[in-house]
Amino acid sequence: MSIINENFMLKNKVGKRLYYDYAEKLPIIDYHCHISPKMIAEDYSFNDAYELFLGGDHYKWRQMRSCGIDEKYITGDEEPFKKWLAFAGIMPGLIGNPLYHWTHLELKRYFDIDKLLNKENAGYIWDEINERLKSPGYTVKSLIKKSDVEVICTTDNPYDSLEYHKQLKDFETKVIPAFRPDLYNLKPDITERMDYFAENGCKLSDHAVDEINDEIIEHLAFLGEEYAKRGWVWQLHIGAMRNNNTKMFEKLGADTGFDSVNDFEIAKGLSKLLDTLEQKDALPKTILYCLNPKDNYVLGTMLGNFQKAPVKGKIQFGSGWWFNDNRDGMEAQLKALANLGALGTFIGMLTDSRSFVSYTRHEYFRRILCNLLGEWVEGGEYPEDYTSLKEIVEGICYKNAKDYFNF
Amino acid sequence: MSIINENFMLKNKVGKRLYYDYAEKLPIIDYHCHISPKMIAEDYSFNDAYELFLGGDHYKWRQMRSCGIDEKYITGDEEPFKKWLAFAGIMPGLIGNPLYHWTHLELKRYFDIDKLLNKENAGYIWDEINERLKSPGYTVKSLIKKSDVEVICTTDNPYDSLEYHKQLKDFETKVIPAFRPDLYNLKPDITERMDYFAENGCKLSDHAVDEINDEIIEHLAFLGEEYAKRGWVWQLHIGAMRNNNTKMFEKLGADTGFDSVNDFEIAKGLSKLLDTLEQKDALPKTILYCLNPKDNYVLGTMLGNFQKAPVKGKIQFGSGWWFNDNRDGMEAQLKALANLGALGTFIGMLTDSRSFVSYTRHEYFRRILCNLLGEWVEGGEYPEDYTSLKEIVEGICYKNAKDYFNF
Amino acid sequence: MSIINENFMLKNKVGKRLYYDYAEKLPIIDYHCHISPKMIAEDYSFNDAYELFLGGDHYKWRQMRSCGIDEKYITGDEEPFKKWLAFAGIMPGLIGNPLYHWTHLELKRYFDIDKLLNKENAGYIWDEINERLKSPGYTVKSLIKKSDVEVICTTDNPYDSLEYHKQLKDFETKVIPAFRPDLYNLKPDITERMDYFAENGCKLSDHAVDEINDEIIEHLAFLGEEYAKRGWVWQLHIGAMRNNNTKMFEKLGADTGFDSVNDFEIAKGLSKLLDTLEQKDALPKTILYCLNPKDNYVLGTMLGNFQKAPVKGKIQFGSGWWFNDNRDGMEAQLKALANLGALGTFIGMLTDSRSFVSYTRHEYFRRILCNLLGEWVEGGEYPEDYTSLKEIVEGICYKNAKDYFNF
Repeated sequence: MSIINENFMLKNKVGKRLYYDYAEKLPIIDYHCHISPKMIAEDYSFNDAYELFLGGDHYKWRQMRSCGIDEKYITGDEEPFKKWLAFAGIMPGLIGNPLYHWTHLELKRYFDIDKLLNKENAGYIWDEINERLKSPGYTVKSLIKKSDVEVICTTDNPYDSLEYHKQLKDFETKVIPAFRPDLYNLKPDITERMDYFAENGCKLSDHAVDEINDEIIEHLAFLGEEYAKRGWVWQLHIGAMRNNNTKMFEKLGADTGFDSVNDFEIAKGLSKLLDTLEQKDALPKTILYCLNPKDNYVLGTMLGNFQKAPVKGKIQFGSGWWFNDNRDGMEAQLKALANLGALGTFIGMLTDSRSFVSYTRHEYFRRILCNLLGEWVEGGEYPEDYTSLKEIVEGICYKNAKDYFNF
Repeated sequence: MSIINENFMLKNKVGKRLYYDYAEKLPIIDYHCHISPKMIAEDYSFNDAYELFLGGDHYKWRQMRSCGIDEKYITGDEEPFKKWLAFAGIMPGLIGNPLYHWTHLELKRYFDIDKLLNKENAGYIWDEINERLKSPGYTVKSLIKKSDVEVICTTDNPYDSLEYHKQLKDFETKVIPAFRPDLYNLKPDITERMDYFAENGCKLSDHAVDEINDEIIEHLAFLGEEYAKRGWVWQLHIGAMRNNNTKMFEKLGADTGFDSVNDFEIAKGLSKLLDTLEQKDALPKTILYCLNPKDNYVLGTMLGNFQKAPVKGKIQFGSGWWFNDNRDGMEAQLKALANLGALGTFIGMLTDSRSFVSYTRHEYFRRILCNLLGEWVEGGEYPEDYTSLKEIVEGICYKNAKDYFNF
Repeated sequence: MSIINENFMLKNKVGKRLYYDYAEKLPIIDYHCHISPKMIAEDYSFNDAYELFLGGDHYKWRQMRSCGIDEKYITGDEEPFKKWLAFAGIMPGLIGNPLYHWTHLELKRYFDIDKLLNKENAGYIWDEINERLKSPGYTVKSLIKKSDVEVICTTDNPYDSLEYHKQLKDFETKVIPAFRPDLYNLKPDITERMDYFAENGCKLSDHAVDEINDEIIEHLAFLGEEYAKRGWVWQLHIGAMRNNNTKMFEKLGADTGFDSVNDFEIAKGLSKLLDTLEQKDALPKTILYCLNPKDNYVLGTMLGNFQKAPVKGKIQFGSGWWFNDNRDGMEAQLKALANLGALGTFIGMLTDSRSFVSYTRHEYFRRILCNLLGEWVEGGEYPEDYTSLKEIVEGICYKNAKDYFNF
């Protein structure tokens, strides 16, 4: 019994054709993620399946907690195999959760494992993975190459030395820094740091917008203007509510699985921010991501207020982010964008991940995209015109991002 | 012509198998409702179809008003048969409304009536029902037994004597009180009342959260801590806006069909409340319900912030509530929970009803659940692994609730 | 290759039958739009395809901007054919956007053109349309007749002389003014203007509710009471955020494609407004439209608070408005209304358009409606009872509006 087969997430003929003829073969541009440039530069090798799959992955930790697993098997000091077993044990109950798909995709694509992960198969799979991890084909650089990744943009502290990016100048995958300042602590030398990042290939920035108020708008407007000067792309990740569990935050720190979706009003503040910059002709290319799907129609229509030649899709509605990085979330984002804007100009998927086996999420996205387009075509809502469909699919999966970022 | 057949709401083969092999035969745990313990204890008999179907059911009253029926046929003093006729007359126009399904399910399961309810059949059905209501098989206790209900949790005023619950100690269905205090009028003896309820089998409380502000958070935190001490489950029903129509409120009072969905921000306040308690190690098992489906992703992710071993699914996202208690609302809740949490730990359905023929809503839920899981399996998104599927279906329909509440 | 065929948007047999047997042949009541009564009265002739299709259509302008088209091809002074070419060029990328469907429906129904609009076919289609536009069958009045429009309600300034409406007294399509005052500048003679409008056939008013606060509620309550006295219908369009781009607003003015979806809280304010009037027995028939689909369940349940005999569906949830005027938006509104109210009482579609070829949107709506109802019937959720289905379809597409407005 297995779950990943050639028709995985492809439920109609046109979708299969779009995926296999156009989408599957394209390289990956992963323009936003949280992997460690140090681990790439040092071509890190993983000790075991636990470290590779569960090491820093708070998505998985959360679900283990949901299933009543004791913290010692999650972030505690139980031995790795016991943690692996605990994780395997919860998998069958994760029906409908993206982790179920992601994990099996990762097992299949990187380790050619077809078996379902569960209590029974956990030991076999543990051995299989650990055996392979000893071989040279499973270092960080090998995993990246195997995944056909053309560009990676990491997410970096403005005061990072970028030493690892420098060391990676000759690596065949471009590894580029992205500028992510803390909005609440902008120092006087922040623009010098931008210049330093630019010298080292940086082409985009990233901000968490966990609130919108006049002070934040002012800071963001200042930064936006500087990015526009440098021709950078600006990413705004809107609507997370972080570190909700004080006890666990004090114990484990940030990014450990205690974040959730906020629900504050975003429309007026965001409009003000973008308008302020546009009035100065200083609005950079912008990617807007929302964490709360109630905001899909706010973002999907906000774009249209500030689109401007000659860029195609200058203001982008970012792909389903974090808690929306699943079948329903991706489809909701794609449908909102299609209904409200020009889907053909979309720059597509990114992993936003801390994991080196998460490139399969691009495959996941591409399958979901092709399936949706195929559904529309077979439903008579778009002609079976493969010239246009090829352009749309190749654009969204690869070419639009390449053009947009000038990679 | 009829609507309730064996495949009702089951549109795929796997779903049918899941329903008939696992879900159908399980007893019902109705852990939250508003039926009268007095009527159970006294084994009430209904006078006619009007009283049984329309007596206190403001869902139906609302739709009669929507269709332009005069209030005298709704809550006024027209004779019961004329009211029944008025209700029957609006049924065909309620296409897509859960009342259409609920009513026909109730007619079929309790009276074996296949005919559609409409003006033409109203008289025949009236006679059929009234004839049966005279037989002993249609008292309140008989209806409960016929429905295979193992546990009922009523919703009670803290100052209720619980005399009827006491009288029901030997009834084969457990009838347990639930503690529902008025947040705005907490009296000094409130914890004594909790003790009294606990002595009488109470295991859960219920709160309407129609606003969230610091005062409410303070009251709730006080109560939550007390519930945690007693090992109770805590239900928060968030987001109703009640008694909107002052004129009708003055005429008919509360719970008469003049409530609707509110849209205030809930994320920050709810996070603060749960965190306050968790910091004291005093967060009880909690069930969060939202009335506005825009909040599905807020609740679905809030859970993950406070899950904690050893309970599976300690914080629950409650089943589609009130205006969401329909095909679309249930599916939206199930999908949100699946995407964001561990669906396998879900404690499933409750009626939240004032009616003694509403147990069919558990059937409705089970069919919708099995249909959705079947759709995922047939779409290749989950393996056709009946060992896991059985565990999931039986868990959600019965076993998880039994474990969660320690019934 | 073409897109508009007899099964367009009709994906099941019952839906096809409902559309062709009942919906297709009904006349159109377009009870809310923004077309110019002057252009009707003067029976305007269009110069070319650009003017007819793109002249004042900011939906299309937005998408051209999204695709990186320079403003000179949109609202600038490039020659019409170049603008047409630019528009044609973006069409294939608008997969999933309602413009793709609307445009091809318009080409097919008014010009019998089956070809897809794209760069290659743009010249041919340009010539075809322009040739036809010279014939007498393509004046404004001819287009309205060809579309079988029984009633048109325009949207008018309270100080409009209504001279064109007077000139149109003998036109076979009723052209009726609607009263749209500026909430922020109500003058003392406003009720005299209502009387003047009433004398000239006015039966409904329209308001943009871009914010809700006590002052606005007070103004609206005053107006609502006056409308109730006159037996008018009241439309509230809630939740737009207008003129977001100051630079473009200064250049082009309002209604040029720089509006988007707002996200303020609406439930409490709206409830207060309607309750204030109901307490005085002065609540007119009301149509509530929301721009943000997050508000669907707020509106869908607000209706029920104020329904009142003898009107069927006195308070209406308006059809998917503006950014929701597409397959997903219409279906979401229809499903919300069906789940929460009595779909059978719905007064259906309106164009809300500035274009004389937009009557095809009624066809679009009817196909989507019939498809959805057919899906429910084939899925066993409603009986295949054509007596009831006919009544529902004919009601929603034509008869309910006719009764509701007393046309």
